[in-house]
Amino acid sequence: MKLLRYGIKGQEKPAIIDDNGDLRCLSAIISDVNGTVLADKKTMLKLRSLDLTTLALIQSPDRIGACIADVGKFICIGLNYADHAAESGMPIPQEPEVFSKFTSSISGPNDNIIMPRNSHKLDWEVELAIVIGRKASYVSTDEAESYIAGYCVCNDVSERNFQLERGSQWDKGKGCDSFGPLGPYLVTKDEVSDPTKLKMWLEVNGKRYQNGSTNTMIFQPATIVSYLSQFTTLEPGDVISTGTPPGVGLGQQPPIYLEQGDVIELGIESLGTQKQTVVSPK
Amino acid sequence: MKLLRYGIKGQEKPAIIDDNGDLRCLSAIISDVNGTVLADKKTMLKLRSLDLTTLALIQSPDRIGACIADVGKFICIGLNYADHAAESGMPIPQEPEVFSKFTSSISGPNDNIIMPRNSHKLDWEVELAIVIGRKASYVSTDEAESYIAGYCVCNDVSERNFQLERGSQWDKGKGCDSFGPLGPYLVTKDEVSDPTKLKMWLEVNGKRYQNGSTNTMIFQPATIVSYLSQFTTLEPGDVISTGTPPGVGLGQQPPIYLEQGDVIELGIESLGTQKQTVVSPK
Repeated sequence: MKLLRYGIKGQEKPAIIDDNGDLRCLSAIISDVNGTVLADKKTMLKLRSLDLTTLALIQSPDRIGACIADVGKFICIGLNYADHAAESGMPIPQEPEVFSKFTSSISGPNDNIIMPRNSHKLDWEVELAIVIGRKASYVSTDEAESYIAGYCVCNDVSERNFQLERGSQWDKGKGCDSFGPLGPYLVTKDEVSDPTKLKMWLEVNGKRYQNGSTNTMIFQPATIVSYLSQFTTLEPGDVISTGTPPGVGLGQQPPIYLEQGDVIELGIESLGTQKQTVVSPK
Repeated sequence: MKLLRYGIKGQEKPAIIDDNGDLRCLSAIISDVNGTVLADKKTMLKLRSLDLTTLALIQSPDRIGACIADVGKFICIGLNYADHAAESGMPIPQEPEVFSKFTSSISGPNDNIIMPRNSHKLDWEVELAIVIGRKASYVSTDEAESYIAGYCVCNDVSERNFQLERGSQWDKGKGCDSFGPLGPYLVTKDEVSDPTKLKMWLEVNGKRYQNGSTNTMIFQPATIVSYLSQFTTLEPGDVISTGTPPGVGLGQQPPIYLEQGDVIELGIESLGTQKQTVVSPK
């Protein structure tokens, strides 16, 4: 299933993509796409058995929201592609590097990216994000996949000055408002044949900067879920963004950063695409 | 006002402390103590004008919960006391060092602290926590105080191996389950005459290790709120823990870490006390 949310920010309604690629409203079935729904086996079975043609067809929705609501934790794995670690001038991590994006940074896949005031090094990162489907505490790598509900595209938008030049911890440059576009849809894992072999790409103003595959990840999704569950109980609806392949702005020679009016397009095989415009600070 | 929450974890009810220090149930007035309530001026005025003797008296509640529900962001300021930076072997920060605790780490003030599996360097940190009362984006230091709802005690429980020896980012050692006791109550700011002059202390098994005051903070609450609001919109119910004075386990010569059965007691002037027992891993 491809689950998504549409409508005004903060008032999104749940929806599903039908076999024709059209959007069907799920408001009559579930209140939202969130951890409670993902963890409820009966509801998930019901969704799977629906005749989607009986649901209201939503033509040209004004806005697509983040594909998951009520996210408790928005965790990121840093430097999870060896080539990206190299272009960032950082050593390859011996174990997953873990940081957070503030959940208030979550936005729709095509919402504007708001350049914060005093930002001069605004950058992009196409990433595969994992959405957790049930509580995971001290789970093994072998078990980990059963705790994953599905996957989505994440642009781990980053401000490199805030992240790297204003202290040792990265959160300041990772969690700004609008820095976490998620979606367009949450693709349940049954429709993702192998999350470790997905092509991924990102373009700025039509020029391709990132052109990678999840097959060059250092730590794969099952390893990441198992690893994180040693430190915290992962809960349904938690999102884990798994790192970016080479080609970010910071890694260009010389570095290239986003400016107002720039248009970013990105996507991952089987998971859809995003398109954002960079707008001026508030 | 001193607002708090009592009852089984996940099913807490709101309450208030009356003039006799007794606990009065607020269930008839508000659904919970959370950002929605704190941001609602009418409800806050109503709470202030209540005749508390008309509310149900709760004698000896089984459990006190975290004093605030539905926390969106649990942000911490690192190394915010010069002496603590020194004992940690870290430079004094030029500007606030910002990291996150996972919101799933939040627990009641007297709940057990669960030692994670493979933990050998479990440590304590008494901290003054700020609770945000209304949305704050790009606010000045002068304005910042008006965005604060109140204050509470936080034990920023930390696993030093996870935090400092397993990568560059600290979140792994800060956000484990039970690592964020908050409370016993949220004291509204009108009852805290000067948050920059509060005595604070922490004892382990009756021995005092931390004995400080918020008057040695590097960055004070108003500065911190203004600073963070340059990077993210602070929302009602967000919690910001503002750093710890000297005397953590890591800073002892040689370092001392918590063991199963240890009892931690801590408190801040005007904000109440906490008491936790360290228990074995799950």
